[in-house]
Amino acid sequence: MEYQEPLFFQLMQYASRSDHPDVIDMVSGNPDWGSPDGIGEGLHEYADFGGERFQYPPSEGLRDLREEVAERRNVPVEQVIITNGGGMANTLGMGRALERGSGDEVVMTDPVYPYYPGKTTMLGGEQRFVPVGADGSLDPDDVRDVASEDTACIVVNTPNNPTGKVYSEETLGELVAIAEEYDAILVSDEVYDHFDFTGEFTSALEFDSEHRIVTNSFSKTFAITGFRVGYAVVPDPHVDAVRARNMLTNVATTRPGQYAVLHALQTTDPAYYEANREELRERVDTFTDALDAADAEYTRPEGAFYVMAKFPDFPGTLENVYDLVDEAGVAGMPGNGFGDSADEWVRFALVTPRVEEAADRLADYFA
Amino acid sequence: MEYQEPLFFQLMQYASRSDHPDVIDMVSGNPDWGSPDGIGEGLHEYADFGGERFQYPPSEGLRDLREEVAERRNVPVEQVIITNGGGMANTLGMGRALERGSGDEVVMTDPVYPYYPGKTTMLGGEQRFVPVGADGSLDPDDVRDVASEDTACIVVNTPNNPTGKVYSEETLGELVAIAEEYDAILVSDEVYDHFDFTGEFTSALEFDSEHRIVTNSFSKTFAITGFRVGYAVVPDPHVDAVRARNMLTNVATTRPGQYAVLHALQTTDPAYYEANREELRERVDTFTDALDAADAEYTRPEGAFYVMAKFPDFPGTLENVYDLVDEAGVAGMPGNGFGDSADEWVRFALVTPRVEEAADRLADYFA
Repeated sequence: MEYQEPLFFQLMQYASRSDHPDVIDMVSGNPDWGSPDGIGEGLHEYADFGGERFQYPPSEGLRDLREEVAERRNVPVEQVIITNGGGMANTLGMGRALERGSGDEVVMTDPVYPYYPGKTTMLGGEQRFVPVGADGSLDPDDVRDVASEDTACIVVNTPNNPTGKVYSEETLGELVAIAEEYDAILVSDEVYDHFDFTGEFTSALEFDSEHRIVTNSFSKTFAITGFRVGYAVVPDPHVDAVRARNMLTNVATTRPGQYAVLHALQTTDPAYYEANREELRERVDTFTDALDAADAEYTRPEGAFYVMAKFPDFPGTLENVYDLVDEAGVAGMPGNGFGDSADEWVRFALVTPRVEEAADRLADYFA
Repeated sequence: MEYQEPLFFQLMQYASRSDHPDVIDMVSGNPDWGSPDGIGEGLHEYADFGGERFQYPPSEGLRDLREEVAERRNVPVEQVIITNGGGMANTLGMGRALERGSGDEVVMTDPVYPYYPGKTTMLGGEQRFVPVGADGSLDPDDVRDVASEDTACIVVNTPNNPTGKVYSEETLGELVAIAEEYDAILVSDEVYDHFDFTGEFTSALEFDSEHRIVTNSFSKTFAITGFRVGYAVVPDPHVDAVRARNMLTNVATTRPGQYAVLHALQTTDPAYYEANREELRERVDTFTDALDAADAEYTRPEGAFYVMAKFPDFPGTLENVYDLVDEAGVAGMPGNGFGDSADEWVRFALVTPRVEEAADRLADYFA
């Protein structure tokens, strides 16, 4: 598998230029349910500060924001580094894993969130893939089969994009154990942690270990993918190196965004998160009911925003997905962008109130 | 010379914790003259958008902002990539230079902006230093002496931090020619281009070549170092690779900041830039007059914000600079953080209206 540049932006561009008059966008991971009021309020407050507060924040992030995160995640504040979104948090975690001279292989799942293999190559590592089960479940024994002294990093995403799987506590515990066994670092990307439909989501933070870095973001939580504010929780032996890498790459993370996120964390009612989760749960039901009617195979997500669907004689290639845009007016992601194992599938993001209409269009198209 | 993490943030932290009741901060490159109104206005406007406009911008930046930059710099819009500040623009330029298999050495000046050697190491390159003249001038023949088939990159900063030198058109032209000769890439970091006191600043953009990447930022121009919005101008053969690297590292650059910068570009009167330049010119005079009175040696900057000063029997070590904070109440940067050649010097950033008071304090301290 070769990855250069994930296809998300390319698909979104294609959809925006299509001749179809009214494409339903199910490509991006852009939440459509709106940010909490605290985000806009925070930005308004910040806009009036000017002067010193428009200048560099500490490279590792605003102290108040780090403290808020540390308290919520029950970790020492020194371990929290604010980053340019979850993307940069993953870049730092994987970069740290690879720079230690403890192997150059990065183990990841197939299908996979396509940024991981791309980052691996960019950081000079080698990609190693572990197939997952039909339901997206990851068997730690399969990871162990691929792991070796050459393993620098294991990178996973739970709740998972694209499969919707929420890894069990046992699975995560085993992954940490494998990372310890091979002197690797488990990078656990948990950006969808607020979108767990099982009630059983487990963070890798629950395992006290120097061999796991947890990454997260406010992009999905607060529907602000454009702000670029995320964080990494980094165990003590790695935190200085990760902080240096963040500083040398980006100097610091944008301060207006950090301030707005802090304000939203302090003012957002828990009902906000619950309402969005409920909305998504309903969309999953609506969309999969319509897919049933269309005789499509699909995954029912335990978390995150995505449904993978498989239509008869319609492999998930870029060409086919472009046809769906132009002819059905529904934009999804080609499954083969997530790995060879997803060749037959198309991924749909449930980030539009029009999921039923989209599913009906698909049913008509494949009828 | 070894660099891990530039000392800027460490010094600022030390100054903020000092027992001295009223330290004058001359450490950071944080402009104190205030942002144009367009920045705050733009942020207020953006804060009310919500919804889709809070989501991912194109990875390479908002189209309108890229067009505005392209028009001002007279380059094709396709060559403009918006980045998380000038820092990330340099990371991309140097990363691109090093990934081509055309050498692993990065040539830079001594003294040097300390991020360059740190980035070089992080990106797997080897540092090569070229000493500059006492006035900060860079002799292209000295660069040629160090350049070889192993040279992947030449990175320079004009107007220069810390020396204040503005490189001549001839020098820049020669640097581009050397980059072409050795299949290297000149990364020309021009973040202080609005602070040229000579009227003779030359951008590397004036030389049409596939061997130069120009980086810039709005951090200094608009006094928004905390926003993290900069850009790279990348010749066609490298632009896809640089765009991919930006996407894989950071996904995208913060959108509220991009919007505010665009609004400021559209609304800021040229008098804003001129007034700040004039203010700095006066501060240079004031500060250097007081240094004359203190019998210190110093550099008189042709551009940027910095004066290097050398006091008798007082090498520019971290310990000495800490003493200046605690005892004189003036915080500067240790010269040896910029390279062996600056061992004897302390760098002062003229980003405070209290430059005269600071210079008087220094004169008293060394009296």
